[in-house]
Amino acid sequence: MTRSTARLRVHNLSMSLDGYVAGPNQDADHPVGTGGHALHEWIFKTAYGQAMIGGSGGDTGRDDEFLRRGDEGVGATIMGRNMFGPIRGPWDSVPDEWRGWWGETPPYHHPVFVLTHHPRKPLEMAGGTTFHFVDGDLAAVLTQAFEAAAGADVRLGGGAATVRQYLRAGLVDDLHIALVPVLLGGGERLLDGITGYETTDLVSSPSVAHLRLVRSA
Amino acid sequence: MTRSTARLRVHNLSMSLDGYVAGPNQDADHPVGTGGHALHEWIFKTAYGQAMIGGSGGDTGRDDEFLRRGDEGVGATIMGRNMFGPIRGPWDSVPDEWRGWWGETPPYHHPVFVLTHHPRKPLEMAGGTTFHFVDGDLAAVLTQAFEAAAGADVRLGGGAATVRQYLRAGLVDDLHIALVPVLLGGGERLLDGITGYETTDLVSSPSVAHLRLVRSA
Repeated sequence: MTRSTARLRVHNLSMSLDGYVAGPNQDADHPVGTGGHALHEWIFKTAYGQAMIGGSGGDTGRDDEFLRRGDEGVGATIMGRNMFGPIRGPWDSVPDEWRGWWGETPPYHHPVFVLTHHPRKPLEMAGGTTFHFVDGDLAAVLTQAFEAAAGADVRLGGGAATVRQYLRAGLVDDLHIALVPVLLGGGERLLDGITGYETTDLVSSPSVAHLRLVRSA
Repeated sequence: MTRSTARLRVHNLSMSLDGYVAGPNQDADHPVGTGGHALHEWIFKTAYGQAMIGGSGGDTGRDDEFLRRGDEGVGATIMGRNMFGPIRGPWDSVPDEWRGWWGETPPYHHPVFVLTHHPRKPLEMAGGTTFHFVDGDLAAVLTQAFEAAAGADVRLGGGAATVRQYLRAGLVDDLHIALVPVLLGGGERLLDGITGYETTDLVSSPSVAHLRLVRSA
């Protein structure tokens, strides 16, 4: 267990000026809700964001740096089940085995812990990614992830509800919020009832204010 | 009526990262609520903020520039009654005549329109400030203020509820939010249900992200 030096990190979590991480009227066909796409446009304007989707070009600079940083020094990822796929309930209701959104070679290249109340056997993918489907309390899953990361950090990949749960439990060491200066007028809030964190860095590009928060001393 | 060029402006409205303009547990003795003082600390670190309270020193730079800008080109102010004083209900319940928080020479030096359901006669102070106590709809009071400003802009001085009402009515031309990167965990929200504005400028100092919003085209 290497908890003393390794950290649980959240990166590039886009939030609107009015506090939403997704717009109103979210459903399976509109995962970011009405207007929510505006939260993620900054990503695809960067060089790293373009590379992620197989494009080229894009801006370097501050936004690009923050985006890249999210993938550095990470040895394991934790994500909510909705980040892995659209399937609810027991996995055996799925006709063919769902293997995630990312094709045969997911961009993780390390162990990924998918929170679910329906554990199933691990799914080994090309490129070093193995999905582990775990049903446990947040701290127990975090312990598993730290062990798998073997001294590197663990990244908390989302979604917003999962991040909120880990924040409420005081288990997040490093939270990077990308504040996008749009008003969505409604939707899913990130920071409701979250306290006990303080901002250590605030910088902005013309399109995003980047904030880094850590637990208050 | 000079509405076509003059603007209704809001400046230096401090909001927490979680969207609050005052902390929880607001009352007469705690007008900014629990933790809410953290929203205003940046003001008193600036040279202009220090000068406002009769101090000296303080930082110049971005925060100072934004603070100063709020007083430039303003010919009249509108404020909610709570900004003028702690008195509720009819004024004649007040033993001695309340003359505002600012002493005999308020820092406005122009006509100030105080929204109240209990009109009373204007109060002329030293230094060019006259308080007008007006009971009318938001647009009607704004028309009065533009006339009094005689071509200069009108500043909407607060409080938050008054700003929210003018935002909802689509009457604000220029909104400067000073986003302070603290979590208050509860309190009075500024932007609930506000849409129809877009950010034209985003810059930050290490302690405040400054956003300027205008009505969407």
